[in-house]
Amino acid sequence: MKFVCDKNSLFEGVNIAIRGVSSRTTLPILQGIKISALKGQVKFSGTDLDIGIECQIPAVVEEEGEIVVPAKIFSELVRKLPEGEVKVESDSQNTVNVVCDSINFTIAGSDAVEFPEIPQVSRENSFKLTQNILKDLIRKTVFCIAQEQTRPILTGVLFEVFQNEVKAVALDGFRMAIYSYQSEEKFFDEDIEKYSIVIPGKTLEEIYRILKDEETEIEIYHTANQVLFQIENTKVISRLLEGSFINYNAVLPKDYKTEVVVKREVLTESIERASLIAESKNNLIKFEIGDKFITVSSNSEKGKMVEKIEVDVKGMFLEIAFNSRYLLDSLRAIDEEEITLYFINSINPLIIKPIGSKDYLYMILPVKLN
Amino acid sequence: MKFVCDKNSLFEGVNIAIRGVSSRTTLPILQGIKISALKGQVKFSGTDLDIGIECQIPAVVEEEGEIVVPAKIFSELVRKLPEGEVKVESDSQNTVNVVCDSINFTIAGSDAVEFPEIPQVSRENSFKLTQNILKDLIRKTVFCIAQEQTRPILTGVLFEVFQNEVKAVALDGFRMAIYSYQSEEKFFDEDIEKYSIVIPGKTLEEIYRILKDEETEIEIYHTANQVLFQIENTKVISRLLEGSFINYNAVLPKDYKTEVVVKREVLTESIERASLIAESKNNLIKFEIGDKFITVSSNSEKGKMVEKIEVDVKGMFLEIAFNSRYLLDSLRAIDEEEITLYFINSINPLIIKPIGSKDYLYMILPVKLN
Repeated sequence: MKFVCDKNSLFEGVNIAIRGVSSRTTLPILQGIKISALKGQVKFSGTDLDIGIECQIPAVVEEEGEIVVPAKIFSELVRKLPEGEVKVESDSQNTVNVVCDSINFTIAGSDAVEFPEIPQVSRENSFKLTQNILKDLIRKTVFCIAQEQTRPILTGVLFEVFQNEVKAVALDGFRMAIYSYQSEEKFFDEDIEKYSIVIPGKTLEEIYRILKDEETEIEIYHTANQVLFQIENTKVISRLLEGSFINYNAVLPKDYKTEVVVKREVLTESIERASLIAESKNNLIKFEIGDKFITVSSNSEKGKMVEKIEVDVKGMFLEIAFNSRYLLDSLRAIDEEEITLYFINSINPLIIKPIGSKDYLYMILPVKLN
Repeated sequence: MKFVCDKNSLFEGVNIAIRGVSSRTTLPILQGIKISALKGQVKFSGTDLDIGIECQIPAVVEEEGEIVVPAKIFSELVRKLPEGEVKVESDSQNTVNVVCDSINFTIAGSDAVEFPEIPQVSRENSFKLTQNILKDLIRKTVFCIAQEQTRPILTGVLFEVFQNEVKAVALDGFRMAIYSYQSEEKFFDEDIEKYSIVIPGKTLEEIYRILKDEETEIEIYHTANQVLFQIENTKVISRLLEGSFINYNAVLPKDYKTEVVVKREVLTESIERASLIAESKNNLIKFEIGDKFITVSSNSEKGKMVEKIEVDVKGMFLEIAFNSRYLLDSLRAIDEEEITLYFINSINPLIIKPIGSKDYLYMILPVKLN
């Protein structure tokens, strides 16, 4: 194998493919990146068998071929090269030579036949989203997935694609996020009702890092158990989570008794202050909702904190307690300046909605007060 | 105790005093900051018994008094307060109350009589430096101090103050830094030859973080075993290291056989590349100096790296090896664009000097090649 390419392209290719490489793998070949040089293109692939990431860059291929290089050291070497042309070459002993100006690196590679094949995903079922919208769908939901493997389906985010809407839903038994994006253009032909796939949280986190804040479109293909994200010159292939997701609509409260309008930042800062005092084990903080105010408080062996915030209150007064981390995670994922809190009573979930054009919500279960 | 002050002043005071607090102390009272309110001034003090840091802020003192508050939580609370006026109050049960707007924090304090007295330093022997010059003196030398306690004196930086010069010297047995600042104004009266003090590295690192890149003057006082830095409204008091420092002039080579002029950044980047390949244990990299070039190389089970840099060479050719970390530490502390390397042979130390107006040098011992 022998090719010449630009240093920055080479770095991009290696740096994207390495996101597929697990640092904790026990299979030595999976600590590598496969380089495949073929007809004016060089492809870099990394996989941990759950996710596979491939990135193609333009190159002058002088000799076609494949090789696997150790991911970490190869990416560090490429990062440290000066700008300009780089020549990469491998010989029959799998020795890899990198030449740039008067710099000459030699490292030992491995035979590419040992590298696992990244599955192909049929391009039948597909829809398109812009990069920034997919970023929003991920950012506003993925923190609500379950961290434990007791119910594997909850470690992913449900993507429901309707004709003019994509809905992302994540929940872990204590809280839930529902974010919806409505489009005037149709996502697919009229004879399908919806696509419904559950994408592992880890896959979405890697994709989030690859996505740019741009309006360029990406294409998402899926089969029953695989999904493929085509993001410009990069492909991310991942397994899907199997089983049926919880019927999230059935969990949502239909009614509420108290409605509070408050500035997101004011409430966030107050909860941050209260959490400093809260027991580190359960982060318990308390809301007391009264006439035109919400009192945020906490109490532990560290001390006491009380803060009274002026707000608009409609409905019944109540006292309710939460794990402050759940509240803060949701408040930090909201971009709008004002939010509405909807309460039923001190044992039923709180719904948080932003005030503005966007249609999304967070639901958080309270902690029982003694 | 009861006082009212501005939030930003309060935060500054707490945040500077906390630098004196050790996170690893076994004495509970030393995990606290002492607050002393007296006549329109409030003083915050933190100490680990080696260093003491005091910071004074303006305040309206309504009731004089002292209290010790837990440093970490108190500083986090103050950081999270909104801008504006803050009222701090303690009662006879040592309960501390912080009020700001509609926010009310209560934490348990401790009696200030238990807090150790920070020693006073007589103001007899003193000299002045601007903040930015002291920053340079610290930054360009402190990384060369010994990390181990086998020779305690080497865990500090020697400050030699002559009438028109301050010299900072640090060495650890493998390398040495000498940085000198010359002043047209005299540092002290003519009847003293010089001041010579060895300041613990840890003290200098804390002072470095407090100093600003400004030309405002600070005053440095010392006795035989204590030093006091008066930096605006802050005092840093530290013990000095006892014993006599190594006669660093005797260690400096008097002559050299090879002189190489090279761009600092070019050499730095090349050494960084070579260290990626070098054995992580000893970071061994090799220089080969020939006619108009220096070849930087490394070789380990990870692979091989060779880079040839064009340079000006005067004198004998040679091969010599170094711990790349020592070279990089020194190169990163130099600001000038070009440097000169002075060699004697492959077993004697290398001297690195910047080309420019500043008078300083680094000395690094080579590693023996087999």
